[in-house]
Amino acid sequence: MKILILGADGYLGWPTSMYFSEKGHQVIAVDNYCKRKIELDCDVSPLIPVRTLEERAKIWNEIQSNQIEVKIGDLQNYRFVYDLLEDYKPDCIIHYAEQPSAPYSMRGRKEAVFTQQNNVIGNLNLLFAIKANCPQTHLIKLGTMGAYGTPNIDIEEGYLNINHNGRNDYLPFPKSPFSFYHLSKCADSDNILFACKSWGLRATDLNQGVVYGIETDQTKIDKKLNTSFHYDAVFGTIVNRFCVQATNNLPLTIYGTGGQNRTFLNIMDTLQCVEIAMSNPPEISECKILNQFTEVFNLMDLAEIIQRESKKFDLKVNIEKISNPRVEKEEHYYNPKNDSFLKLGLKKRKLEDFINTQINFLLKENYQIKLDCIKPNIKWNKS
Amino acid sequence: MKILILGADGYLGWPTSMYFSEKGHQVIAVDNYCKRKIELDCDVSPLIPVRTLEERAKIWNEIQSNQIEVKIGDLQNYRFVYDLLEDYKPDCIIHYAEQPSAPYSMRGRKEAVFTQQNNVIGNLNLLFAIKANCPQTHLIKLGTMGAYGTPNIDIEEGYLNINHNGRNDYLPFPKSPFSFYHLSKCADSDNILFACKSWGLRATDLNQGVVYGIETDQTKIDKKLNTSFHYDAVFGTIVNRFCVQATNNLPLTIYGTGGQNRTFLNIMDTLQCVEIAMSNPPEISECKILNQFTEVFNLMDLAEIIQRESKKFDLKVNIEKISNPRVEKEEHYYNPKNDSFLKLGLKKRKLEDFINTQINFLLKENYQIKLDCIKPNIKWNKS
Repeated sequence: MKILILGADGYLGWPTSMYFSEKGHQVIAVDNYCKRKIELDCDVSPLIPVRTLEERAKIWNEIQSNQIEVKIGDLQNYRFVYDLLEDYKPDCIIHYAEQPSAPYSMRGRKEAVFTQQNNVIGNLNLLFAIKANCPQTHLIKLGTMGAYGTPNIDIEEGYLNINHNGRNDYLPFPKSPFSFYHLSKCADSDNILFACKSWGLRATDLNQGVVYGIETDQTKIDKKLNTSFHYDAVFGTIVNRFCVQATNNLPLTIYGTGGQNRTFLNIMDTLQCVEIAMSNPPEISECKILNQFTEVFNLMDLAEIIQRESKKFDLKVNIEKISNPRVEKEEHYYNPKNDSFLKLGLKKRKLEDFINTQINFLLKENYQIKLDCIKPNIKWNKS
Repeated sequence: MKILILGADGYLGWPTSMYFSEKGHQVIAVDNYCKRKIELDCDVSPLIPVRTLEERAKIWNEIQSNQIEVKIGDLQNYRFVYDLLEDYKPDCIIHYAEQPSAPYSMRGRKEAVFTQQNNVIGNLNLLFAIKANCPQTHLIKLGTMGAYGTPNIDIEEGYLNINHNGRNDYLPFPKSPFSFYHLSKCADSDNILFACKSWGLRATDLNQGVVYGIETDQTKIDKKLNTSFHYDAVFGTIVNRFCVQATNNLPLTIYGTGGQNRTFLNIMDTLQCVEIAMSNPPEISECKILNQFTEVFNLMDLAEIIQRESKKFDLKVNIEKISNPRVEKEEHYYNPKNDSFLKLGLKKRKLEDFINTQINFLLKENYQIKLDCIKPNIKWNKS
């Protein structure tokens, strides 16, 4: 298959590129380096330096016969997108090319506007370019479980059968996004669904949980092929931050009560899910929506797992509740469904079995950690 | 009250400006003339030439002691918006400043992107400017009933009490917008709801039906104070188009079967509704959502009303079904609620009582009509 991977310089984009390249697919890896620019803006960086997409592709291409091609360009530049799709007419497009940080989107006006403009307009250009050049292509778009918010009802996969006043309809699941980033993802999903219905495109919209881990079968081949590990308050995810705190004698800091439930999955399971999605394409005019995660934890449970695992390394770890910089429910019902991927054969990895790998890695690399980037410096409701 | 009216050069913006000015409020009227630019682009124009906002305000200010101030600028220019709100700190902001045409948004990539960028980013800048300068202000945002689509359940006002698997929650009503324009309105509404919840802003989001009529108590004062009458395929609404067809011996052309139901209201009732909304502001952190219309008709019923009224003028009018340029359900359940405005005292005008005024007006102005702009030239699913 000819696979276009958008956002291929990113945390997931690069491992995905290698994964499908190794399987013999023709991979075209695209990025605009926008996340690297945001890192400079916010003065944060991955724990281990990450070579550019071009450099990593070169290294990959030297050790593999199946070459990854790289294109640097911006989805907001429609000519770039149209040319790309006209030149390659891919069978499948995996679209990660979005500003991925909720805190960044809440930093101020400039960042909120950048997030919505970059994500929504980039995605819109892509939809028009698909329509013009390769309407049969399968668009796989990465979204987020966070778009659902924390409703008091079970979270179904994208749609909901609603009974109301004796009638019923199968409608888009009502979302409650809780940052301008999550709002941009909702707008994307709505545009995609509309393009499928109106133009006969076909798409799979993956609402993904928090991904942890940086190791895949391909990153292991050469250290220079690594992907990013972020533990800072802008791009860092909670698993990474907790592990860094654990290996640095710092308390695991929980925003608020810790009753917030979130979904999680291993980076290897992201690859597995994307592959399953690709092997099960939607019909013409269909927009499949799947929830992509393997486990649910609340923040306190998560902290306790990491505390327990840390003991095996003789690390003494405390848990500390701090003031919540976000506006979110801290105690709530949470029951998201992920039956689709399970039915399609997803084999779940467990967070518990992973933490020791992460701690081992961090203990080795501890000298590189900058502790001052951990404290949350972006508030949801600062005036 | 100090009232900022955004989009004040538009079909509703200008009558609203005069309406509140006459009532003694301080009105600041703002526009970027973007709709006039789109008219040039699409080679369409209102039936009777409309003077610019500045010219009309000058005329108004000569005959009235209470002056309307005009500011020309673009909400996409955040400095303009911040300065505006810092200078005036309005009590209320009535926000009409959006690209208002669904067909225009479906014309192609450029137009879809313009619509979403202009509407979503302009609105986002406005939210941040409110937060920074006048967080207590009451934002009244005009949305559209079209955002709901045509679900098979009753359409409630913005929110829906959902029972699912034995649990329930009160969630945003799941929308099914059917153009990039309607999608932009959904994204706006989501951003506004989020800003209310996260920052403590307060807003009223008005989901409005199709507005008809061009006469208000204030436009009658001087012909030079008129608002726009559009009957073209880009900005023209169906009531206007049918009436123009009736007065020109043309069949009333229905897209598809005519079973499509839509909501309607008289322009005088728009003014009434906006005033009612203003008098009933939401609490801090509240986003009130109201459905703003007075009647529901399907297109065939509407055509028959206009056919019947035309007979009184000895006009012989046929009805003709033509191929539907839109992707939409042509036969469907439709039961939108508007209880809130009725409870708050809205007195409804009837379309039936209005058509003769419209036909009279058109018979007088018939020589100005350009018939070649009526035929739909924008298709939802053209390849």
